[in-house]
Amino acid sequence: MSSVLVTGANRGIGLGLTRHLLSDPSVATVFATARDVDSAKDLRVISNPKLHIIQLEVVNEDSIANAVQKVSEIVGENGLDILINNAGIGYMAPLNGEISKVQMAETFQVNSIAPLLLANKFYPLLKQAASKKGSAQIANISSGFGSLDQSPNVQMPLAAYCMSKSALNMLTRRISVEWKEDNIRATSFCPGWVKTDMGTERAELTVDESTIPLTKLILSLTEDHNGQYYQHTGETIPW
Amino acid sequence: MSSVLVTGANRGIGLGLTRHLLSDPSVATVFATARDVDSAKDLRVISNPKLHIIQLEVVNEDSIANAVQKVSEIVGENGLDILINNAGIGYMAPLNGEISKVQMAETFQVNSIAPLLLANKFYPLLKQAASKKGSAQIANISSGFGSLDQSPNVQMPLAAYCMSKSALNMLTRRISVEWKEDNIRATSFCPGWVKTDMGTERAELTVDESTIPLTKLILSLTEDHNGQYYQHTGETIPW
Repeated sequence: MSSVLVTGANRGIGLGLTRHLLSDPSVATVFATARDVDSAKDLRVISNPKLHIIQLEVVNEDSIANAVQKVSEIVGENGLDILINNAGIGYMAPLNGEISKVQMAETFQVNSIAPLLLANKFYPLLKQAASKKGSAQIANISSGFGSLDQSPNVQMPLAAYCMSKSALNMLTRRISVEWKEDNIRATSFCPGWVKTDMGTERAELTVDESTIPLTKLILSLTEDHNGQYYQHTGETIPW
Repeated sequence: MSSVLVTGANRGIGLGLTRHLLSDPSVATVFATARDVDSAKDLRVISNPKLHIIQLEVVNEDSIANAVQKVSEIVGENGLDILINNAGIGYMAPLNGEISKVQMAETFQVNSIAPLLLANKFYPLLKQAASKKGSAQIANISSGFGSLDQSPNVQMPLAAYCMSKSALNMLTRRISVEWKEDNIRATSFCPGWVKTDMGTERAELTVDESTIPLTKLILSLTEDHNGQYYQHTGETIPW
């Protein structure tokens, strides 16, 4: 029985992951985090004893420390089995147009630095879980836009977003090297183009079409997936 | 005859590039930038009419705008042929140790965001050069540490640095797509492990051993190199 934490769980892909994790019999506890818990209505209507809603601002170190403390009180010596770094923001701006340095910095803060901070601060709980059960997992919800190999196919002006997701993929790689002996593994995922606030209504996939297979993938990670990069369908994405 | 701008030219690889650019007969003008021009002694002792030393703090948009203005006054309608984004900083910290969010943010600011801001603000001058001569070039001085493919070989705790360089490589890719029609090209380079303040004295290469071939590579870029990633020796590095 696993414990899983999902950031940015109040809507979109994070909410979808939370729902499908809750309905999976192998999952005992889901920590669904949101920056603003009061307005996370779609989370708050879920009535399930497995669910713990936790306030978390992913770019705020004190907020992360508080979340670690709350999770620790609930999981006790079992630690945290799976950390899903899902919270992310988009930023679209042509490279030859008006570029906001502030928005670029925020994109890196949320999409690249926060997942590192979260991994860093949840390390003790992840290590505890790994020592009990053989491994713990970090699932970084990246994007196909983070693929350097595939980038020539991207025509949208998403440079800062693409850059932040390549950086997140590198975090996956570095965790897979630095924490290999701890059996804490990391994997990057592209959820596909999903009908969310970011993906817009024009997107190819419903939230369920993305997050049902994505949840299954995350719950079936093995050593072979450590440091790798997958589509929600399970296909490998080239870096 | 080319005009070239090098950021972080006061020491190390930037200084080496500046020296070898100055001695190349195909180069007419070198703009060597430094955050603190007064203390850039190794630059200031160079007596060469091709050399223009320019104050530039790469993370400061007003400073970039001033530099663009100064370069514009000198190159006039010829524009700027080559922008070398060389300024960079290192940050070493194990993923399970004390991590400074401030230093991580600074690493991304200098290594990833500043090159984008510079490309953005020098775009009009690069486009002008491209329209006169057929192409303009952006050389992003990245690192082998930015290679996702090669990352399992890296044992040093350089996550934030590696992430910032993968992001820089993605900038290279995005420029190669977004500015293809403008004939403004971008290429990433690893200078090798060089005896600099960052590389330390234990490094494999002297500054000249890195920057003599690197200068030649940068001065011989063609359409084939657009959006690619090379070692200073000219070998392709996998993403």
